[in-house]
Amino acid sequence: MSSSTLPNSYTFQPIGIIESPYQEKFGVPRQANLVAAKSRIRLLAPYNTPDALQGLTEFSHLWLHFVFHLCLRQTWKPKVRPPRLGGNQSLGVFATRSSFRPNPIGLSLVRLESIHTDQQDIYIEIRGADLVAGTPILDIKPYLPYADIQPQAHAATWAQEAPDPLNVHWTPEALANLQVVEEMQNLYELITQVLAQDPRPAYHHKTDPHRVYGVKLSGYNVNFCYRNSEQAPFGAPRPCIWVLAIKPL
Amino acid sequence: MSSSTLPNSYTFQPIGIIESPYQEKFGVPRQANLVAAKSRIRLLAPYNTPDALQGLTEFSHLWLHFVFHLCLRQTWKPKVRPPRLGGNQSLGVFATRSSFRPNPIGLSLVRLESIHTDQQDIYIEIRGADLVAGTPILDIKPYLPYADIQPQAHAATWAQEAPDPLNVHWTPEALANLQVVEEMQNLYELITQVLAQDPRPAYHHKTDPHRVYGVKLSGYNVNFCYRNSEQAPFGAPRPCIWVLAIKPL
Repeated sequence: MSSSTLPNSYTFQPIGIIESPYQEKFGVPRQANLVAAKSRIRLLAPYNTPDALQGLTEFSHLWLHFVFHLCLRQTWKPKVRPPRLGGNQSLGVFATRSSFRPNPIGLSLVRLESIHTDQQDIYIEIRGADLVAGTPILDIKPYLPYADIQPQAHAATWAQEAPDPLNVHWTPEALANLQVVEEMQNLYELITQVLAQDPRPAYHHKTDPHRVYGVKLSGYNVNFCYRNSEQAPFGAPRPCIWVLAIKPL
Repeated sequence: MSSSTLPNSYTFQPIGIIESPYQEKFGVPRQANLVAAKSRIRLLAPYNTPDALQGLTEFSHLWLHFVFHLCLRQTWKPKVRPPRLGGNQSLGVFATRSSFRPNPIGLSLVRLESIHTDQQDIYIEIRGADLVAGTPILDIKPYLPYADIQPQAHAATWAQEAPDPLNVHWTPEALANLQVVEEMQNLYELITQVLAQDPRPAYHHKTDPHRVYGVKLSGYNVNFCYRNSEQAPFGAPRPCIWVLAIKPL
């Protein structure tokens, strides 16, 4: 088939929807597996048949193709400014995994935990997803170590390692807020891991270093700020992310 | 965004087209990196700008999202019969990388060789692709070893290792055909590597073991058959794929 006879476009339908603790783009980890939080894929009809998943649990990891559905109205540009480069250096969009792409298709590697059915619904329980709740899933494929692991592969200097996690320090007020939460330990770990990834926009680092942020996680609004100054109390590591308060949404 | 307000479908446009030695589905390796053949991506307008690729060559490997464009008219079924299981055992489609999927999106990891421009065209030269010529590319992403290599990942028994390559034995007639080919050594290696992957449909193995096949590679029709019998001549390994003849298309 020559390119002149190729269709101009291809249309795909979601086969499932992500349910995750990430309720907005802000706070979502910037790659998979940086935060071990649990999520799940709810399969949509007509794909919610156990037949389509037969043999899947023999694999430990899955590739998810998904739509960056909250970036659909953004215009594509050939260059983007990855957060890993501090937001002040631009790169070709195809040299990054930015969500602002010509085709807003994402790729995430997640750990498969289990499959469970609940009346008509089929859920694939996963860990390590970097996907906002409501993300449409286009496809699920098994991770094939013999093909997908390329030990000799090398990346650009800026992408060679995961970003160093920041210290996360809970104020007594935030810890007190946590006492009334039902799944306290899970929420503590989720918040700590998410904030250790420093979700702040890179361009705030200099312009607004003490700003207080709110991030929505698992039904709670979490207030936090960054401290790299004399303002941190005795005993708090610095630099660190300070968890200030947690309130139900 | 709740699933009730999600769009029913998403439409994407090809950003590039594959030029590869594989001129038809038959003969295409069944995973990436099983055959080291060279291919290239020709970027389509308006994506054919060097800006969109800036920084890409700092990565050694790329993920390609593509469309299984020759499988579009096939009906989706929840179960498929992977060639790796001899074609007589069925598995859930999401537990395989079969090209017959609800959304015919493929994922291949390829080695990046170089980028070159030729008048208006921009080509990304790659190795190891398992893509038929003319395949539409939807997206290109850098391979991130820290995120994409999961050494502890495990696969189903049937997918733990690449299939053992078969012996490939060239008949004197096929070797004579090769003498007049311009890039003789490249074609020899391509044919040997492709046939070592045993492109025969699994269901022929028993029903039609001596059938003579033709496969189109790099502008040539290659005739071959399988030999696991007393018919193999002295000196030829068995089992083996026998290369019988090569003719320009």
